Amino acid sequence: MTLTRNALAQRDSTDSLATLREQFDLPAGIIYLDGNSLGVLPRATAERVQAVVTQEWGTDLIRSWNTAGWIDLPLRVGDKIGRLVGAAPGSLVVADSTSINLFKVLAAAVRMQAQDKPGRRVILSESDNFPTDLYMAQGLADLLQQGHELRLVPAEQLHAAIDESVAVVMATQVNYRSGFMHDMAATTARAHAMGALTIWDLAHSAGAVPVNLDAACADFAVGCGYKYLNGGPGAPAFVYVAPRHQERFWQPLAGWMGHAKPFAFTTDYQPAPGIGRYLCGTPPVLSMAALECGVDTLLAAEPLGGMAAIRAKSIALVDTFIELVESRCACFGLALATPREAARRGSQASFAHEHGWPIMQALIERGVIGDFRAGADGAPGLLRFGFTPLYVRHVDVWDAVEVLRDVLASGVWREARFQQKAKVT
Amino acid sequence: MTLTRNALAQRDSTDSLATLREQFDLPAGIIYLDGNSLGVLPRATAERVQAVVTQEWGTDLIRSWNTAGWIDLPLRVGDKIGRLVGAAPGSLVVADSTSINLFKVLAAAVRMQAQDKPGRRVILSESDNFPTDLYMAQGLADLLQQGHELRLVPAEQLHAAIDESVAVVMATQVNYRSGFMHDMAATTARAHAMGALTIWDLAHSAGAVPVNLDAACADFAVGCGYKYLNGGPGAPAFVYVAPRHQERFWQPLAGWMGHAKPFAFTTDYQPAPGIGRYLCGTPPVLSMAALECGVDTLLAAEPLGGMAAIRAKSIALVDTFIELVESRCACFGLALATPREAARRGSQASFAHEHGWPIMQALIERGVIGDFRAGADGAPGLLRFGFTPLYVRHVDVWDAVEVLRDVLASGVWREARFQQKAKVT
Repeated sequence: MTLTRNALAQRDSTDSLATLREQFDLPAGIIYLDGNSLGVLPRATAERVQAVVTQEWGTDLIRSWNTAGWIDLPLRVGDKIGRLVGAAPGSLVVADSTSINLFKVLAAAVRMQAQDKPGRRVILSESDNFPTDLYMAQGLADLLQQGHELRLVPAEQLHAAIDESVAVVMATQVNYRSGFMHDMAATTARAHAMGALTIWDLAHSAGAVPVNLDAACADFAVGCGYKYLNGGPGAPAFVYVAPRHQERFWQPLAGWMGHAKPFAFTTDYQPAPGIGRYLCGTPPVLSMAALECGVDTLLAAEPLGGMAAIRAKSIALVDTFIELVESRCACFGLALATPREAARRGSQASFAHEHGWPIMQALIERGVIGDFRAGADGAPGLLRFGFTPLYVRHVDVWDAVEVLRDVLASGVWREARFQQKAKVT
Repeated sequence: MTLTRNALAQRDSTDSLATLREQFDLPAGIIYLDGNSLGVLPRATAERVQAVVTQEWGTDLIRSWNTAGWIDLPLRVGDKIGRLVGAAPGSLVVADSTSINLFKVLAAAVRMQAQDKPGRRVILSESDNFPTDLYMAQGLADLLQQGHELRLVPAEQLHAAIDESVAVVMATQVNYRSGFMHDMAATTARAHAMGALTIWDLAHSAGAVPVNLDAACADFAVGCGYKYLNGGPGAPAFVYVAPRHQERFWQPLAGWMGHAKPFAFTTDYQPAPGIGRYLCGTPPVLSMAALECGVDTLLAAEPLGGMAAIRAKSIALVDTFIELVESRCACFGLALATPREAARRGSQASFAHEHGWPIMQALIERGVIGDFRAGADGAPGLLRFGFTPLYVRHVDVWDAVEVLRDVLASGVWREARFQQKAKVT
């Protein structure tokens, strides 16, 4: 049976998550399919940030570290994120950026393995991993000068490539370009069977797909606050360390907020018990307050089925999008770059096209906001569309595909103004 | 001649910086002498942050990386801070926390010296340095396992302790407890004469005293956004690298924002030219916008004499405070812990007292906000008072001392409620 807009509107009318959309300030005339790059502004955020600025900072000033609980924000928001990714309280903390957090856990993992499996110096990762993860590993290896090898294989081959030479497996659960998703539990199990530790980057999975770090027996994880967690531009990131590993070593970015007694001002570093030692410097309070509002928009789904319900809707949205693009935009040179099988992908769909950049600019001008990602190693770039079930409706999928079809059929994207490159893509 | 409140009011009436106070939202009934811990809220900040949240994020969404110039914030605000600390454009960037930035430059400095002066493994610092600086150095040394020694001497002996065994001198220009200030140019010159590199922590000097990094031939510096720069709680920090050193090495926290082409998404790290390579992950935009407003409150002093005028007022305020405390609060057991000579101190005055904690709590209850810092190695704790000339008046100094006298004379601080310890001091 051919899909119709009416059929999709019908799905929206029975969507048990539909009310969650009211939590957001969505600009008029926009279909936003870029929540995997920057999540939408929650309605609660503006007021909350204003209260932090004018009341907590402006009026209460320095006292707010105690009276407004600023000092507890990293652990409190961390525990909330833990509920979304299957991490028990006290095993996840908000701090710094994803890149910095990756450095902390990679340094800890490498160090554990130097003791447990001396001689293993391979960090196994994906050639198409998000680049900052690879750069941070390169920076660490270069700093240590201990002969670590960053071994890269395509994401799809990662699982099979884990052998007994590997010290640490460092992978992004959902690939930022293709949306390919690893089976975290299976790959972690294989890593452990081979004596390797795992670091999972959840940038494109936290808040997008069900994650259960504890159940997967994950060792370390990091993730991003500004994508599906709706924490705002450059929101602080998070870091998870399995309780069994937390107190084994310091992480090297041993700042005062990770000290057992930061306000004793002692000369020697004594790491805080538990996950607290993964903190470093003073947390950015304004950005952290905004992040908490974003995380709350996902926790609001808990009584409605939580991440399982979000996932079900996400699969339906992406399946529909792929089906409609392939049926209604055939012959325009789009090639699906995302796994068709829902279990093997996150909450996005990407299509390769040799003119991906100007096509996306034309889409954006018409109010359909996705983004463009350069292809790997000279491959065609990708039109990338992220689906955030909290605020994307089934009819939005229909309408977005209609605009895409019109952009492609009209050839409007060939106009000179769409060719212009931007600093940030 | 004995000082009177009227005489101080007279000074305020002729203060050429007096108008700068109007830039701030000062809560009623408060004398705020804690701008060295958390600067006051500038009036412009609330509106600016709200615009970033509702317009730039809420309405323009992901496009704001280009259209609102989010991507340029770290370098743009860095150049503004550069004007306050004598750093040419392109030599200072806003990023991460002070602790993280210290790690970047210490790693770079250690690495340069491993090549230039092999065998030197001493990092010389101050036993009473702000602890996070020592902790970060301990974390780096512990990670490298290359036999680096963190050699600590009292701040006053640092200059003399620089010898040819020293690879890196890591010092805080103005001590957080005592306010003792190093002669940056002289100590840097001595370090260079001995073949050592310098890292200056400007947490208590940027915006408080005139600093001229370029003229002092400084190698590296870091500093804090939330103290005298009025950037808000946990504001991002900054890092300075002399142009002659910038391109010599990567710093190890090699995140994508420091890449030459972050949006080319290449597998290998290629550092950006110049200071840009000291960026790491995605910057926290809300906190960075607030920081820019704070920095602007200091730049507003430029036509009024800039940092030199701010310094002159700061010296007058602190001199007056010390004189009044010593004359009007004699016999209550307060001992000046700050250098009496203005050239040797920053913009604060600290007094040791064995009951410093409850005395400060009683002061705060009466609206005089300073803070308490535990003493080093069992020494009595300090009542610490910071003077921010942008918003502190001469009459505030008088009124604060009157409250202090009353608290001490009445013995109100002995009441049980003031003994209670807080999480954050």
